[in-house]
Amino acid sequence: MWRFVSRKASINTQFLGSLIRVYGRTVVGSDTIVDDMVVLGYPTRKSLAKVLETRTQAQDLDYAFDEVSEGCIVGEGCIIRSGSIIYERVKIGNGVQLGHNVLVREETKIGDGSSIGSYAIIEGETCIGSRVNVQSNVFIPRRTVIEDDVFLGPGVVITNDKYPPSGKIVTTRICRGAIIAANAIIIAGVKVGPNSFVAAGSVVTKDVPEGVAVKGSPAKPFSEIDDFLRKREKYLKST
Amino acid sequence: MWRFVSRKASINTQFLGSLIRVYGRTVVGSDTIVDDMVVLGYPTRKSLAKVLETRTQAQDLDYAFDEVSEGCIVGEGCIIRSGSIIYERVKIGNGVQLGHNVLVREETKIGDGSSIGSYAIIEGETCIGSRVNVQSNVFIPRRTVIEDDVFLGPGVVITNDKYPPSGKIVTTRICRGAIIAANAIIIAGVKVGPNSFVAAGSVVTKDVPEGVAVKGSPAKPFSEIDDFLRKREKYLKST
Amino acid sequence: MWRFVSRKASINTQFLGSLIRVYGRTVVGSDTIVDDMVVLGYPTRKSLAKVLETRTQAQDLDYAFDEVSEGCIVGEGCIIRSGSIIYERVKIGNGVQLGHNVLVREETKIGDGSSIGSYAIIEGETCIGSRVNVQSNVFIPRRTVIEDDVFLGPGVVITNDKYPPSGKIVTTRICRGAIIAANAIIIAGVKVGPNSFVAAGSVVTKDVPEGVAVKGSPAKPFSEIDDFLRKREKYLKST
Repeated sequence: MWRFVSRKASINTQFLGSLIRVYGRTVVGSDTIVDDMVVLGYPTRKSLAKVLETRTQAQDLDYAFDEVSEGCIVGEGCIIRSGSIIYERVKIGNGVQLGHNVLVREETKIGDGSSIGSYAIIEGETCIGSRVNVQSNVFIPRRTVIEDDVFLGPGVVITNDKYPPSGKIVTTRICRGAIIAANAIIIAGVKVGPNSFVAAGSVVTKDVPEGVAVKGSPAKPFSEIDDFLRKREKYLKST
Repeated sequence: MWRFVSRKASINTQFLGSLIRVYGRTVVGSDTIVDDMVVLGYPTRKSLAKVLETRTQAQDLDYAFDEVSEGCIVGEGCIIRSGSIIYERVKIGNGVQLGHNVLVREETKIGDGSSIGSYAIIEGETCIGSRVNVQSNVFIPRRTVIEDDVFLGPGVVITNDKYPPSGKIVTTRICRGAIIAANAIIIAGVKVGPNSFVAAGSVVTKDVPEGVAVKGSPAKPFSEIDDFLRKREKYLKST
Repeated sequence: MWRFVSRKASINTQFLGSLIRVYGRTVVGSDTIVDDMVVLGYPTRKSLAKVLETRTQAQDLDYAFDEVSEGCIVGEGCIIRSGSIIYERVKIGNGVQLGHNVLVREETKIGDGSSIGSYAIIEGETCIGSRVNVQSNVFIPRRTVIEDDVFLGPGVVITNDKYPPSGKIVTTRICRGAIIAANAIIIAGVKVGPNSFVAAGSVVTKDVPEGVAVKGSPAKPFSEIDDFLRKREKYLKST
């Protein structure tokens, strides 16, 4: 067994993998599984710069990382699958499920009961609500807001810079209950309204009004969410 | 060297990485490379629930995972590159090559001589034929059928729910010899016919007939596969 | 601490993770961070074949990999984040930053000051210039040329085979200063001209002239780069 757990950390679960690394004042709630090769409290680029400046003579990086990391918070009853990396100052609620190799960067919040698919990347300072369902391979950039009960299909990409690489970041907002199907692209600064629907492969360049279904590139309204929900009802009843 | 290999496993190769984990009654054929950080027999969500229920007091998770996992089967002469994760009840044939960090979920079958690119995700209960070529970053959802000799280009996404997230899964079928180019999206329930061609970036919303080439969003026929093959011949002869 | 560092390697930095593997005559420059679970000098498929042929009786693969690998070169002041894999015969310049789980395959070169996002895959024999910014989840196939100061947004996919899977690879060239936005697809053999712009989600099937902005599928010119830059100026000044 090989394991690095910071002395400053507060671990309230017995379900720990044998190859984990926990840095800084990280807190892990009860009944949470922290699987192998998971890292909790990974240092930001700024913190890495401190490591380089102080030229720590430690025999390996773990002690240096532990010194600079402020740790992260993971709630109760979560599953953090193998290879996932949670940066410092992240707050993950209760009952959150992460797939394999999920990356959650600094200062991001994830609400209770949300589920993040394998290989998803959630950049820093992002706010994800409760019961959000993020499928595999999704990319969520810095300072995005994802409200409660949103569904993001596999491969969805959200952007945060209107004229890349300008360095100026604007917030993209996916409002409560919105459904974004596979591989859709949401352009920087757009607001996807509550209970709206974005079809697979769409490129959303303008705000999507509440309850509207859009598709295409650039995405245009083609239906109302009520119609989508009626079709879903029928689909669920079919055999 | 750190390694966890279940006492129940049957390992018939000498080519094992030093940081591998093998759970349950896993069988590995001769001359197969199992590289570092590979996991064989990873427990399903259901099995993880059992771990939580029984509150195993084992000092690390490996013994608990081993207890609940039914293991997987990997054939002879395979290469399982670093970081790949094979769930329990998966059956992988002979001469199969996996890239790095490939995820293969429960009860999936992969036929002889197939090749799966790095970071590809193959969800559970999926059936992949022989000599199938899945490029990097491909996403294949639960209960998909991929017949023999299919080619899936990098970033292809297949879906399995017509009105997500309805929870109702339909089978998407990619028939023998079909070629799906980079980043195309195949919508839930579609049947992509034998020896058909889907152009890069297409969104396939309807069945593709045998031997037909489609492109666009929604994808529409634009040519026959014979024409595609003639062009390929010419391309191969050009310098 | 578990670590495999080849006796043939020349490591000039003190910033080493505890779970790293370094094969062959790898050289690492001063002040470079080599984080946990990084592999330097990973063997090519051809080298793996040698391992199988010689049937090394080593207790684990590391000694066998070390024997066949020619190693790689990583410059000074780089950050190689956790899980990244650098194949043999790769040359990485100075001040290069890699995200997590980046894959860089054999004989690829990356110039000074470039940055490669998490989960990006860079296949073999590719040439990447200086100050190139590759965002997360980008796929760059074998024999691609990316010149200096190029920006590739998240999820961009480049291809290298016009009639896949023909096996015939053509070079795709992204010229200096080109900007390719999120999830765009660049088809095999295309030349994206200097200081051009490709909009998010475009499918580029033809050469893009110098200084031209294109969008759509297939991508068509819609503006000049000067217009894009003027809009960017305005965007940067807005609040």
